[in-house]
Amino acid sequence: MRTVGIIGLGHVGVTTAYTMVTKGLADTLILIDQDGERAQAEHLDLADAQGGLATYTKLLVNDYDALKTADVVIFAAGDISQVGAGGNRNGETVSTKKAIDDVAPKLQASGFAGVLIDISNPCDVAVNYWQQKLGWAKHRILGTGTGLDTYRMRRAVAETLNVNVADVRGYNLGEHGASQFTAWSTVYVNSTPISAFAGIDYDQLAETSREGGFAIFKSKHYTNYGIATIACDMASAVLSDARRVFPCACWDDAQQISIGHLATVGATGIIDNPTLVLPEDEQAKYQASADTIKHNLATMNSFD
Amino acid sequence: MRTVGIIGLGHVGVTTAYTMVTKGLADTLILIDQDGERAQAEHLDLADAQGGLATYTKLLVNDYDALKTADVVIFAAGDISQVGAGGNRNGETVSTKKAIDDVAPKLQASGFAGVLIDISNPCDVAVNYWQQKLGWAKHRILGTGTGLDTYRMRRAVAETLNVNVADVRGYNLGEHGASQFTAWSTVYVNSTPISAFAGIDYDQLAETSREGGFAIFKSKHYTNYGIATIACDMASAVLSDARRVFPCACWDDAQQISIGHLATVGATGIIDNPTLVLPEDEQAKYQASADTIKHNLATMNSFD
Amino acid sequence: MRTVGIIGLGHVGVTTAYTMVTKGLADTLILIDQDGERAQAEHLDLADAQGGLATYTKLLVNDYDALKTADVVIFAAGDISQVGAGGNRNGETVSTKKAIDDVAPKLQASGFAGVLIDISNPCDVAVNYWQQKLGWAKHRILGTGTGLDTYRMRRAVAETLNVNVADVRGYNLGEHGASQFTAWSTVYVNSTPISAFAGIDYDQLAETSREGGFAIFKSKHYTNYGIATIACDMASAVLSDARRVFPCACWDDAQQISIGHLATVGATGIIDNPTLVLPEDEQAKYQASADTIKHNLATMNSFD
Amino acid sequence: MRTVGIIGLGHVGVTTAYTMVTKGLADTLILIDQDGERAQAEHLDLADAQGGLATYTKLLVNDYDALKTADVVIFAAGDISQVGAGGNRNGETVSTKKAIDDVAPKLQASGFAGVLIDISNPCDVAVNYWQQKLGWAKHRILGTGTGLDTYRMRRAVAETLNVNVADVRGYNLGEHGASQFTAWSTVYVNSTPISAFAGIDYDQLAETSREGGFAIFKSKHYTNYGIATIACDMASAVLSDARRVFPCACWDDAQQISIGHLATVGATGIIDNPTLVLPEDEQAKYQASADTIKHNLATMNSFD
Repeated sequence: MRTVGIIGLGHVGVTTAYTMVTKGLADTLILIDQDGERAQAEHLDLADAQGGLATYTKLLVNDYDALKTADVVIFAAGDISQVGAGGNRNGETVSTKKAIDDVAPKLQASGFAGVLIDISNPCDVAVNYWQQKLGWAKHRILGTGTGLDTYRMRRAVAETLNVNVADVRGYNLGEHGASQFTAWSTVYVNSTPISAFAGIDYDQLAETSREGGFAIFKSKHYTNYGIATIACDMASAVLSDARRVFPCACWDDAQQISIGHLATVGATGIIDNPTLVLPEDEQAKYQASADTIKHNLATMNSFD
Repeated sequence: MRTVGIIGLGHVGVTTAYTMVTKGLADTLILIDQDGERAQAEHLDLADAQGGLATYTKLLVNDYDALKTADVVIFAAGDISQVGAGGNRNGETVSTKKAIDDVAPKLQASGFAGVLIDISNPCDVAVNYWQQKLGWAKHRILGTGTGLDTYRMRRAVAETLNVNVADVRGYNLGEHGASQFTAWSTVYVNSTPISAFAGIDYDQLAETSREGGFAIFKSKHYTNYGIATIACDMASAVLSDARRVFPCACWDDAQQISIGHLATVGATGIIDNPTLVLPEDEQAKYQASADTIKHNLATMNSFD
Repeated sequence: MRTVGIIGLGHVGVTTAYTMVTKGLADTLILIDQDGERAQAEHLDLADAQGGLATYTKLLVNDYDALKTADVVIFAAGDISQVGAGGNRNGETVSTKKAIDDVAPKLQASGFAGVLIDISNPCDVAVNYWQQKLGWAKHRILGTGTGLDTYRMRRAVAETLNVNVADVRGYNLGEHGASQFTAWSTVYVNSTPISAFAGIDYDQLAETSREGGFAIFKSKHYTNYGIATIACDMASAVLSDARRVFPCACWDDAQQISIGHLATVGATGIIDNPTLVLPEDEQAKYQASADTIKHNLATMNSFD
Repeated sequence: MRTVGIIGLGHVGVTTAYTMVTKGLADTLILIDQDGERAQAEHLDLADAQGGLATYTKLLVNDYDALKTADVVIFAAGDISQVGAGGNRNGETVSTKKAIDDVAPKLQASGFAGVLIDISNPCDVAVNYWQQKLGWAKHRILGTGTGLDTYRMRRAVAETLNVNVADVRGYNLGEHGASQFTAWSTVYVNSTPISAFAGIDYDQLAETSREGGFAIFKSKHYTNYGIATIACDMASAVLSDARRVFPCACWDDAQQISIGHLATVGATGIIDNPTLVLPEDEQAKYQASADTIKHNLATMNSFD
């Protein structure tokens, strides 16, 4: 049975739960939030939503013990109000650290033996911090990272070239934050490299994917739909051992840090990391992004 | 092509949009909100969510003209902050009236010739008010009404008897509000009338479905998942001409008012209203609920 | 992970496999057939079908060892050519017995610890024979039985009353064969008993559901779509522990035989059998059907 | 409403119908076959399959008039028994021509104004013959062509490199027959050109995709699952105006023949043909394949 825990029932966590329920992506869903009444309220709303479905998802609430047999835990706790006016995800560094410090021992104690997917920001730093805290095999912990930025970049390219997003391939890499970059060398539209298309404003497109979240955030004060679908896509790859490739926040042995790069996602988490041969300028951006994450991780570690 | 307009992109409207996008229930979705930046932000978030889907939904923003060829318009504008501390949906009477007054001429002008599904509260009153305002054939305008309360009642019965909600049938009727009632004479579990089960606390169960929304509302300040799925189920019945039966807020010729009762939903809206022979006590509750709606409609009409 | 084995890749078995692949109902599918080339060919065709899917199903071929961790095995081996000109499913008694005799020890040896769902005909007799052969707890073995006839009856009622099949409830019970019957006392349309509708030709409708397969069989020489969907529905109820109620061929302790009656299907197979209080004439038909199955089981046992 | 006609209810046509019904891809399905009893039998089997679905598809049988408002017609008539022992699809040239000669005037008379998707073989020749016969704007007629071979090539590459088929891109082009070729210059795995992977046996892989159907055909005597899914994918692109890119059998203005090459598929059929810059050897293969189709079209035209 596909068992998924979701810790943190803010907009992102509960939208992820709703997506799993309505699309039949999980058989048991364990909903966890420090606010017990909120968890119970979301549980009722999700239960109501099952009235017309052909699939069934068992819903449990605030039951850490049930995580023992879970395949995936999605960590979505966070405090979006900490994001700065400029949309800097590092604003959440302190609140996310506190949430991880609170949850990590409970997760450890539950006997959970599956794959942890972190959504909480700053995502790459959080993944590294989880890895420090839990000491598990690195492949068991990953973050949605630039998976979402990648969907945003593809959407922006699709709009520009008037094609379907499904026909655009390629990746955003590095930090799920300001230091990320679109690896244009990896972007293809119908197997034609994007460099073959005239009149592309690369800076504008990269900006759109990097800042896409903040365009939404400014008016809505959070984003939830894009991120929930990428989280569901990664979780589903674990649950069905699909061995699908995503740009995930995960361990890079060469950099000795977890950072957004290509990863094959399957039953045990990160199965392997496909090689991408990047041109020098993209390599440099990747290196700079890794340095940024290291610096931000040190900052997170410096807080008590 | 299945074309759906959603007017009002609060939690309910946009969750309905997200459900349609992720489940591939519409081919074109026209997102309309008086806050243009918000509409644009939700559009971007929903567009991001299409990055991993096998289906495709075209998204248009604030384009009333596009409603000309729409099959369904879902009206979800409202001001949840107007709901009283006790959870009385009539608190929205003024704000919903204003929203309808604002939207009705635009909808009329668009040339929209499809089916209007009202979610906004007070739902029954709103349906009646829409019918007054637009003067369309009655079958073209319906509300989700006690469809949601019905899902809640089934969920409550399912939990009590430890069965799957799909195996519970029966309906909540009347006002989507305090005067509604569970028509227990219509409730069956695996084709066995609920009266055959021992130890049922009917008042408690009816309370759960009637007040289910407020249990959620108290902690979350709105409900969106249950209502979005019932709205999608009704819209899908129109889009595929499924002729499925729901308890909808729609015209009751005997009562000369729109009120929640059984309706066959298909391409032209309400196809017909299947007869339910209710026992006297349930008939009396229905009559009382109709009177309540008439009274509340008069109240809505009395505001300028 | 949801792991399903399908043994017997004739039209029914492979259509069941295809449904699971295209709807994402299983994570691993183990395809087994005595004709290894055929199994390989179906495997390739199903693998090709995954080229455009958002879900992933791992396909294994003729790997009995893999059944050790399977949740469900669907047995669909049979020799449709043995069905008589009149469409008598007992024509398959000898061929199905041989197939079970062949497969049972392999299934036993595999260490399979899940739920066995028999589709092969004569279905009720086959379930009983499996139970004799394997000696497992009775709840682990069930057959699709009158589940399909129930769908056919509902379809026939829906067509007659011009309603959606989803709004018709009620069951066909007894043998998945000539002695079955529609339990009209259980049939409701929108919570109204069918007896309240005028002009129903019950004999004609019962005939349609009982003989529905043969109307198809006569021209097509097999039926596969209805049966594949009911098999998938039952398997999904096991995989998600949905505790949904179906009329299944399963053990009736009072009759000391497996026969089609209501059953709650969940992770361990038959969770319980909801009580249905039938009127005397329907009870008599059920008894007669049980006697028929006992007689036919004796016949199956009499063959070497 | 999404309305689809399927003409020819052999294994391929009816599997396509079943996929549309179970996945909710069409709202109305018009099933047409010269064998009226067979059409009725398939209709019943498909209707039975709707007993447990959350979606609804209206089924009509042998109703050419209903095609007047259809969005898509899928032509799947053919006589698989005419395929030679070596699996040559040209064996069907005579029978397919006769089927088109029979159906074309009826389709014309129906007033059908949508998009025709030909599955029948020899697919490219059939598309050209349809275009001659009907005289419609070229963009309204296309064939599944090398869409299926493309899925097969991707599957073969995925198996060889142990990756998910969804992460393999690239196309088979030319005739859906022996003269087709894999355009290796278009094949990428996770945005890395296949030429960067060591130890690839290109001839073997190309052979697998070209001859993939016959590996299945040899044992099963037909293939249906892969082809049904690609047909559904193309039909869905029309129905939702998805503007997705497939290698389709469609008009190539430079070659003055319909042949498998990239096409953007949307509401009006072929929206445009994205440019692929192929290396010389692949261009030569494309030219040779175009010549083959021209020759085979002349052959088809030479029969009475």
